[in-house]
Amino acid sequence: MINQLNTILSNSHEAFLTYQFASGESKKIFLYTIAEEIEAIGDTLLQTASEESNLPLARFIGERARTCSQLRAFGDLVAEGSWVDAVIDSALPDRKPLPRPDMRKMAIPIGPIVVFGASNFPLAYSTAGGDTASALAAGCPVVVKGHPSHPKTSVLVAGAIKQAIQKCNIHPHTFQHVVGESFDIGKELTLHPLTAGVGFTGSMSGGRAIFDYAQQRKVPIPVFSEMGSTNPVIFLKDALLQRAPEMAKAFAASITMGVGQFCTNPGILLGIKGSALHQFTNLLALELSLTSNFKMLHEGIYKNYCTGLDSILNDKYVETIYHAHAVGDIIASPVLTRVTASNFLKNPDLRQEVFGPFSMVVECNNMSQLIEVWQTLKGQLSTTIMCTDHDLTEHSGLLKIGRNIAGRIVFNGVPTGVEVCNATVHGGPYPATTDGRFTSVGMDAIKRWVRPICFQDCPDALLPPELQNENRMKIWRKVNGNLQNQALS
Amino acid sequence: MINQLNTILSNSHEAFLTYQFASGESKKIFLYTIAEEIEAIGDTLLQTASEESNLPLARFIGERARTCSQLRAFGDLVAEGSWVDAVIDSALPDRKPLPRPDMRKMAIPIGPIVVFGASNFPLAYSTAGGDTASALAAGCPVVVKGHPSHPKTSVLVAGAIKQAIQKCNIHPHTFQHVVGESFDIGKELTLHPLTAGVGFTGSMSGGRAIFDYAQQRKVPIPVFSEMGSTNPVIFLKDALLQRAPEMAKAFAASITMGVGQFCTNPGILLGIKGSALHQFTNLLALELSLTSNFKMLHEGIYKNYCTGLDSILNDKYVETIYHAHAVGDIIASPVLTRVTASNFLKNPDLRQEVFGPFSMVVECNNMSQLIEVWQTLKGQLSTTIMCTDHDLTEHSGLLKIGRNIAGRIVFNGVPTGVEVCNATVHGGPYPATTDGRFTSVGMDAIKRWVRPICFQDCPDALLPPELQNENRMKIWRKVNGNLQNQALS
Repeated sequence: MINQLNTILSNSHEAFLTYQFASGESKKIFLYTIAEEIEAIGDTLLQTASEESNLPLARFIGERARTCSQLRAFGDLVAEGSWVDAVIDSALPDRKPLPRPDMRKMAIPIGPIVVFGASNFPLAYSTAGGDTASALAAGCPVVVKGHPSHPKTSVLVAGAIKQAIQKCNIHPHTFQHVVGESFDIGKELTLHPLTAGVGFTGSMSGGRAIFDYAQQRKVPIPVFSEMGSTNPVIFLKDALLQRAPEMAKAFAASITMGVGQFCTNPGILLGIKGSALHQFTNLLALELSLTSNFKMLHEGIYKNYCTGLDSILNDKYVETIYHAHAVGDIIASPVLTRVTASNFLKNPDLRQEVFGPFSMVVECNNMSQLIEVWQTLKGQLSTTIMCTDHDLTEHSGLLKIGRNIAGRIVFNGVPTGVEVCNATVHGGPYPATTDGRFTSVGMDAIKRWVRPICFQDCPDALLPPELQNENRMKIWRKVNGNLQNQALS
Repeated sequence: MINQLNTILSNSHEAFLTYQFASGESKKIFLYTIAEEIEAIGDTLLQTASEESNLPLARFIGERARTCSQLRAFGDLVAEGSWVDAVIDSALPDRKPLPRPDMRKMAIPIGPIVVFGASNFPLAYSTAGGDTASALAAGCPVVVKGHPSHPKTSVLVAGAIKQAIQKCNIHPHTFQHVVGESFDIGKELTLHPLTAGVGFTGSMSGGRAIFDYAQQRKVPIPVFSEMGSTNPVIFLKDALLQRAPEMAKAFAASITMGVGQFCTNPGILLGIKGSALHQFTNLLALELSLTSNFKMLHEGIYKNYCTGLDSILNDKYVETIYHAHAVGDIIASPVLTRVTASNFLKNPDLRQEVFGPFSMVVECNNMSQLIEVWQTLKGQLSTTIMCTDHDLTEHSGLLKIGRNIAGRIVFNGVPTGVEVCNATVHGGPYPATTDGRFTSVGMDAIKRWVRPICFQDCPDALLPPELQNENRMKIWRKVNGNLQNQALS
């Protein structure tokens, strides 16, 4: 296998030598063609993904749409071209004491990227998912380690990408697909000298392992592991009084959506103890009891869910509010628990993510205790504040605390269902990710795979088109400190 | 000492709780005041820096100006405000199948930054140098580990910053200064749980050590070590024929500038063997012989220079073209050597940076061998091409190779003397730095110390001013995909 990986990375490096120079327009055509080829697989893809993941077919209509629209959005981004963050500081030959040279900078791709797909998003964050789409858009070849929980889906999607490569006359090794159950494959891919970056979406243990392997490298590379979180939600008092029924409905749906298998699943719910919180908790339990039970993605995730649950329920201070009686092979039981803040603070195990349809209400004595609990949870993809205007007037300082906890702060909504747009941040301080300065969802995901290069006094004709005076792509550039999309005279 | 460091980092974290919210305008005043206070030290600072570094006083007039202009430039950057890269995607309540929430994103500071100053820039890349200025501009408190080779200079500058803190009524622990020779201090600062990032400028061994310490952390943090490079220069044939005398003069000055103690020092000179290269080499030796010999920064650097030289000169294939007879305590002898490309390729030790007034001409048989040598040198802060228009017509493909080697490509200039501007990249692939996606010189140095945060459906009044509809700072924002500096209706 190691020899095979050598060949694969050498091929990827070879592809990089040409693919890095692909124009934005040609990358757009390539990414659009991948989307078309994925769509062209038709129902077979939906059925295969559904069978391999135990998730309903309808889910994959949405996920396929998301996958394809992501690919197209990255295509649009690079065809427009401003994403390279071009900066030009013109020469000042008469400046004293020294003249200023002509300095021009833009982002260029870093090299072959290894992508580890997520089992919970067989399409949108796997073989042709956000990591792959952003790396290909950047100009980086991709080696995908197919997730062993959906091998057929991964092969189908890889086939679509291969088709697109052929149709678009792209270097054949711009995308390569590695299959295999062995954990060693991931390790060797991460350690390989020709690997220039790694994107991982999955569990804490998996993401941290990949990160640790990378730390054994002689040459450091960027590793972006997105490892999920508990996404704490604060329910403020007036919101509980005004909107308990609708919030209970929304959060029951969010907790159980996709059998709770989302990294943005609301796993910890914070409120001030009292009748309002009590009533909301009961309503939430009721709503959970109305949801159906489904199979989890695979045996391993199911086992982890059971182990995680056991660890929580073994704490004698944790009260079970609702525990569905699920019967059948790897079927998850939605569970709602409750604990007091003082007991929560005593047991750090309670802060761990339980990946599945689980949530825990933490009853706080007062706002200062609630904030104390919240702050112990630093390192989240998201945190949410459920509130009314009245609540916010009373607790306007919350936001200043919340922004140090997570990559995204949601108001009066559920954290699941991450919007893919320019402003998305699906990142956050460790352990949500290994580098909170980046995002794995949304257009800025491309920034993980590029680095800036500066051309000093380079003849105009030799510059990449993005930096030439003519600016024929009409991209936005910072010229002598001012953003503009004009040509330079 | 460990207890002291605990206090220092706790204090820094405490300062972060307020300083992160300082307005751009107030940070500008703070940074400007630091510059004024540094200037107010007057000649004492220049004399102290000169005495401690063995560099001439005149050098510090320039370096002080650079230090202060950097501080002011970062002040201007954050007062203008667009640096936070604000992005707004408005709500689309009627979108099908799901409405889009209002998503707004901007950069926020990450926390206390530990800065290790460089011995070769006692002002511009040390106590109040580029790392400190960029971190303070970002909104991060700074802990500087003063460089033991210029303790008095560091204390003077730290005093200026303390003065500015008092005058501007900034949290007193926004800047702290740690002194001490022990290497353990650096280790403990890097490992401390409250440290959120590290900036280092110095040697490969020092930078790598700091990076390796950081890898022992449970919680990963950004570490930007800038560790220097050999900055290969290509001399193309027509340029050698047309401009040998002026190039020899310029490169002799660049090699010996600051006693060769610049990370952008041109340490490897590549050309095609023949009379033109031969003549240029002789001219360069002649020009070097006209330079004066000076003391190096300190004993350690002098010893490393001697060891590095020995290692090169021990290679029996390396020919000494010029070796100054320097006499006196820690006085460096400028040295020019020559080796054939085939012998260069055989001995990887010859690729190592020799920090000091040293350079080596690598004689290549032809362009393909030259390119082979160039590519083995991947991981540079800069690489330079000396050429005429005629050369470039013949070798137009060079640039496509060069951009994978370095962070900056210079045409017809010397690599020393890095311009501080928006387009600067003082970075590059490892081992030039530990993360080629960032720069330590120029305005984008601030990007190392920030991460994005997204506000989803946040009430306008609670948003940071940069993201509010009103846009009272008139900053540039990407609104629904379009850059603009208007208010939102």
